[in-house]
Order: sequence, then C-alpha cells, then structure tokens
Amino acid sequence: MSELLYGRRAVLEALRAGRRRFYRLWLEGDENSRPTGIVAEIQAAAQARALPVRFLRGGIFDKLRQEQVNSQGVALESDDYPYVDLEHCLAAAKRAGEPPLLLILDHLQDPQNLGTLIRTAEAMGVHGIVIPDRRAARVTPAVSNASAGAVEHLAVAQVTNLNRTIDELKKRPVWVAGLDSEPDTPTLAQARLDGALAVVVGSEGEGLSRLTREKCDFLVRLPMFGQVDSLNAAVAGSIVLYAARQARANLK
Amino acid sequence: MSELLYGRRAVLEALRAGRRRFYRLWLEGDENSRPTGIVAEIQAAAQARALPVRFLRGGIFDKLRQEQVNSQGVALESDDYPYVDLEHCLAAAKRAGEPPLLLILDHLQDPQNLGTLIRTAEAMGVHGIVIPDRRAARVTPAVSNASAGAVEHLAVAQVTNLNRTIDELKKRPVWVAGLDSEPDTPTLAQARLDGALAVVVGSEGEGLSRLTREKCDFLVRLPMFGQVDSLNAAVAGSIVLYAARQARANLK
Repeated sequence: MSELLYGRRAVLEALRAGRRRFYRLWLEGDENSRPTGIVAEIQAAAQARALPVRFLRGGIFDKLRQEQVNSQGVALESDDYPYVDLEHCLAAAKRAGEPPLLLILDHLQDPQNLGTLIRTAEAMGVHGIVIPDRRAARVTPAVSNASAGAVEHLAVAQVTNLNRTIDELKKRPVWVAGLDSEPDTPTLAQARLDGALAVVVGSEGEGLSRLTREKCDFLVRLPMFGQVDSLNAAVAGSIVLYAARQARANLK
Repeated sequence: MSELLYGRRAVLEALRAGRRRFYRLWLEGDENSRPTGIVAEIQAAAQARALPVRFLRGGIFDKLRQEQVNSQGVALESDDYPYVDLEHCLAAAKRAGEPPLLLILDHLQDPQNLGTLIRTAEAMGVHGIVIPDRRAARVTPAVSNASAGAVEHLAVAQVTNLNRTIDELKKRPVWVAGLDSEPDTPTLAQARLDGALAVVVGSEGEGLSRLTREKCDFLVRLPMFGQVDSLNAAVAGSIVLYAARQARANLK
C-alpha cells in the first residue's frame, strides 16, 4: 500500500533514511519555482534517487488543506511505514555496542503524542520502539510529520501481544520499567535505569493496562507538585527516556 | 470579553480554581440526561456557584465540531483568561516559602505546545510563567484545554518586553537559564539549577532570539544521540523543568 508523506522534515528524513520505496515527490509551485533552503534539499535528495519531481498548485495540496493538514508545500508518495520485529530492535543495540534501550507503548492513542515521543526516543538514542497492532495509534504520515521525520531513522516493531513481548524481553534479560502514577510507586530519581532497559508508557487516559503493569520488573513515577496531577503522556515518557539516557552517560 | 472554554478537565479546573467570572455552562444532551463521572463533577461545581446549566444538542457543540474542536460535550462561557503581572508570580513563590522557579516563553507559537508546557510547569510547581503580548501564542480556550486545565491554577504574566523582564529578574536576583542547542553549550546535567531560577524556552523553529540569548545568565542544552537533533519545544522545556524541580528536591 502507498501513502502520502507530508511536511518538510518528515519528507527530507524519509528520503535521507531511504528505508521506504518512493514513487513521486510533489512540490507546491509551478514550473518557474526555484526552491531554496530545506525544500531545495528535498528536491536534490529526490533527484539523487532518480525520483520524479512535479510542481503543482491545488490538487493534493488543496486536499490536504481541507483535511486541516499543513503539508508545508511538500508531499511524497511512498510505501507504507516499514515496521521491523523485536529482534531487529535488539540487533540495533548490539550494532551500537550498547545494552538495549527500548520504548514500549501500551496503546497510546493520539498521533501527535506518538510522533512527539518517537522524536524524543530517536534523539535519546533509543534502539527500538514496540507498539501493539490494534487499538493504538500506528505510524501514519501524521505521526511521521509530528516526529519531525525521526521515525524514518528508528526501528519500530508492531506486535500482536505486548505482554508476550515483555516476557520475551525479560528472558534476554532486559529490565522492564513501567511508568505509573500511583502515590506509593518509587520516583524516577530512585530508580536504577542504567543497563538493558525497556520503558513502558501507557495510554493517555488509562495509563498502563493492569496485566502489563503487573508484568513490569519495576514501576517508576514522576513526582508531582501541583493541582493537576498528571503530565501529557508524550512529555512523561520523554522525561523518563532522558533520565534513562542520563543514567548511561553517568557511567562513562 | 467573554470566551468559550471547552474540554472536561479544562472546564472542571476553571470552576475549581474560580479565578474567572463565569456566565453559563453548556452540557451536550437533553433534559433526560443524567451525567456521571467527571461531567457530574462539573455540573455540581457549576451548581455550587449558582451558575446556569443548560443541556443542548447541536448549536455551539456542532459549531465546535465544525472547527475540529473536541469539546467532550462540555462548554463554559467565561471571562477571558486572568493574566497577572511579574510581581504576582514572585509573590506566589514567597507564599510557598521557596526561591522562585519561573518559566519564560520567548515567542512560542503553537497552542498545543503552550498548553502542554503549562501543564508540566504547573505539575512541577513552577510559580509563574511569563509570555510576550505579541507574536506569540496566548492563553486561549485551546491552550487551557491542552493544559488539562492546569493554566487555571497557574500565574501567567503577559509582558510587552521579555528582555526588560529578564533584566528585572536578574536584579532580584533570579538566575536566568536559556535553553539552547549550540554544541558548545554546557549540558543540562552540568548546570546548577537549584536556587531562584527562571528557565527561558525559545520558539519552535527559531529557538531563543539573539538578544534574549545574550541576556541569559547561562545557557543549557539537552544532549542529543540521534539523527534528528532537536526535540519538540514543549518536551525540551518540560525536561528542563523536571531537572530544575529535581535539583530542589535533592537539597532537602
């Protein structure tokens, strides 16, 4: 199946990463247009791949606008997102010569949150992300755009059963840490986050599902000091990933 | 001027905080509706304030849907957001018996980012936020919704000149830390964040403006380990606020 990637960073990073098959690049403009800056980079990256580039006004760009999508005048027809499997994520860690650092998303719903969290994960050197194949946001063009293209460089595995994946990781052995909000859960600062680690982040409204919560080796919470006692799910997950990366950096 | 707040958490927290003048509460439904859960809490909070509550199908709820707004069936007619001044933010710190912890936003543009960052700030016990009164996102109902209502509990000052505010803070003395991405900037982990502190976060595309950057007492950056070398602005600011709160917690 093909889909339409949009957004300057998402399209540029897709072309740079080169993991998808591409069909056509659309740039908003006409035959006299002379792109500059990042759009010129996109055009050059497409031409280097011998990809057809077409300038266009209206058409798909009007259609995207009607869907309240800000394409930034760039659209790339490509194959669907290339998911990998769990072994691929673990192999990425091995190639990097590091103990695995993984992110497991327990039914995150919002594409914006998924994209934001993927962007942080990529920047923090996470080796792979695991998402469920049902009742959860998947890697759509909106997610790629929200991730500023980071998802194109990152290994994302789609699995049928998250809890089976957690069992598998515990055997490797990778420590599995769940992000929780119960008051009796130890705080992030109290947790050991160095070593092989998978961080599990729950869904926006519900947090971790009961069984997944029970399967985690340990739980961590972010301490709260205000009246509204929760964070955006992407922010909370991002803070844990930053702390996990920091715990590794401190070892060096 | 009046505006229409929407979203269950935003409306509930507005009623709880009680800092605005309210006119009417609209609930999606009809005279036979019997709200439960958080909508029942909202209804009770409105009735406790002797506020007119009206059930309605269509009308403003259809209008919000046409604007791609998810009201969650709750809308509250109220006065505009009650901005405060810088002194009010500093007084909030004094009341809490703590050195001030403030957030300054240098022309953040995206309402979703503004709301997300306000939510984190409130949860991390920030005493006040300073935003510019032009060329920047202001506290609209969309921002209140994205903050999960946290903005209703937080002191937000709108100022004409951010740089003058920074000068004023430096006299008090509050240390002013700018979030930057230049490779030669010290990392967050290297920074002293305890004590009276104002964190400055720049706009999504541009980061800190040149003059504001120069005015900061010191700069910090988040270390990056991936291909895409930046974070979402709300995530980056949130990580700094978490670290600043952590630095205070470590003192106790």
